Amino acid sequence: MILHGYWRSSAAYRVRIALNLKRISYQQTSYPLRQGAQRSLEFLARNPQGLVPALETDEGTILTQSLAIIEYLEETHPHPTLLPPHPLARARVRGLAMIIACDLHPLNNLRVLNFIGDRYRQDDAGKTQWYQHWVKVELDALENRLSRDAATGKFCHGNTATMADVCLIPQLYNARRWNCDVRSYQTLLRIEEACLLLPAFSAAAPERQPDSE
Amino acid sequence: MILHGYWRSSAAYRVRIALNLKRISYQQTSYPLRQGAQRSLEFLARNPQGLVPALETDEGTILTQSLAIIEYLEETHPHPTLLPPHPLARARVRGLAMIIACDLHPLNNLRVLNFIGDRYRQDDAGKTQWYQHWVKVELDALENRLSRDAATGKFCHGNTATMADVCLIPQLYNARRWNCDVRSYQTLLRIEEACLLLPAFSAAAPERQPDSE
Repeated sequence: MILHGYWRSSAAYRVRIALNLKRISYQQTSYPLRQGAQRSLEFLARNPQGLVPALETDEGTILTQSLAIIEYLEETHPHPTLLPPHPLARARVRGLAMIIACDLHPLNNLRVLNFIGDRYRQDDAGKTQWYQHWVKVELDALENRLSRDAATGKFCHGNTATMADVCLIPQLYNARRWNCDVRSYQTLLRIEEACLLLPAFSAAAPERQPDSE
Repeated sequence: MILHGYWRSSAAYRVRIALNLKRISYQQTSYPLRQGAQRSLEFLARNPQGLVPALETDEGTILTQSLAIIEYLEETHPHPTLLPPHPLARARVRGLAMIIACDLHPLNNLRVLNFIGDRYRQDDAGKTQWYQHWVKVELDALENRLSRDAATGKFCHGNTATMADVCLIPQLYNARRWNCDVRSYQTLLRIEEACLLLPAFSAAAPERQPDSE
């Protein structure tokens, strides 16, 4: 498989963790986002949305959207599982993952930051305010839920890593990059610590990728 | 089951379609979003994220995030299916659904429009520009993909409604509400026409809900 991504893309980072957890070997192709490589004709032929990541299967099919890719990996390489067995528990895990993947990350994507910079004349400080605002809204909600919920264990759900952790760790990485104050998220930080002890997570870290600058 | 939602919430609209397609009977509770009912303590106790929809199961469990809810319905009420059987096809359908649910809809949510109004002093015209910009970016990409892809049929994927159609129809409804020009999306409009012939879709329409104003 070939992962079309970028070392700093948070959504590509999710897919790297999932591939590693499932011990699937893969190659990486890098699209430097700030230079607009994801808008090149070559990449748009692969993904008309012009967003990384895209996963190219061994048969040459291109899959897009990180969570759809991870669901595919879960269905085709079920062990170890990234979703618990019971439907209610699966809904909980997917719901936690989507707080990050649907309600937080898309707001803080590069193209959105560029838009508010260009249209609303926001400088780096203004973009940082935007970024930090949405991180706080959603990580507050996530910490609130995880800290009081009996289903939370060593990881977001119980004592094995799931799709929710796969989304949480890249989001925390990005939050720090934007100087968000994450110190109050005791539950999230505890879960992060447990995740980063696993080689699948630590090997997926941005600074450990071949295209990292 | 009780669907905690609002007639105009696009994400609640998705869940209504899915419940209808699966012929699951449900009650609705309404949270008028512009009045901030989704931020009431009563609702925050159900969903700390303060976003609709939330689905309350017959056992009283609260599920959040529309796509996580729909996956739950798919797992617990598998017929009719909202996902095709083959993993690659499932990944395609989920990927299409997530173009809308992850990359488009969250940018145009009420809280984001309120934020750009307050912080960047955008009036209704400015908010409409923001809204229309992101609709165009993503619906252009979606039309591009669906129009050239052999897997597209009468619906987004083949000839039965899937999770992708469940996301597409509410998004087109919202796009028109914000005066987006959707006339060039021939494939999307053809699919919409097929969907709206199904009672499950038409009965889920915002203006047909009990709390519609």
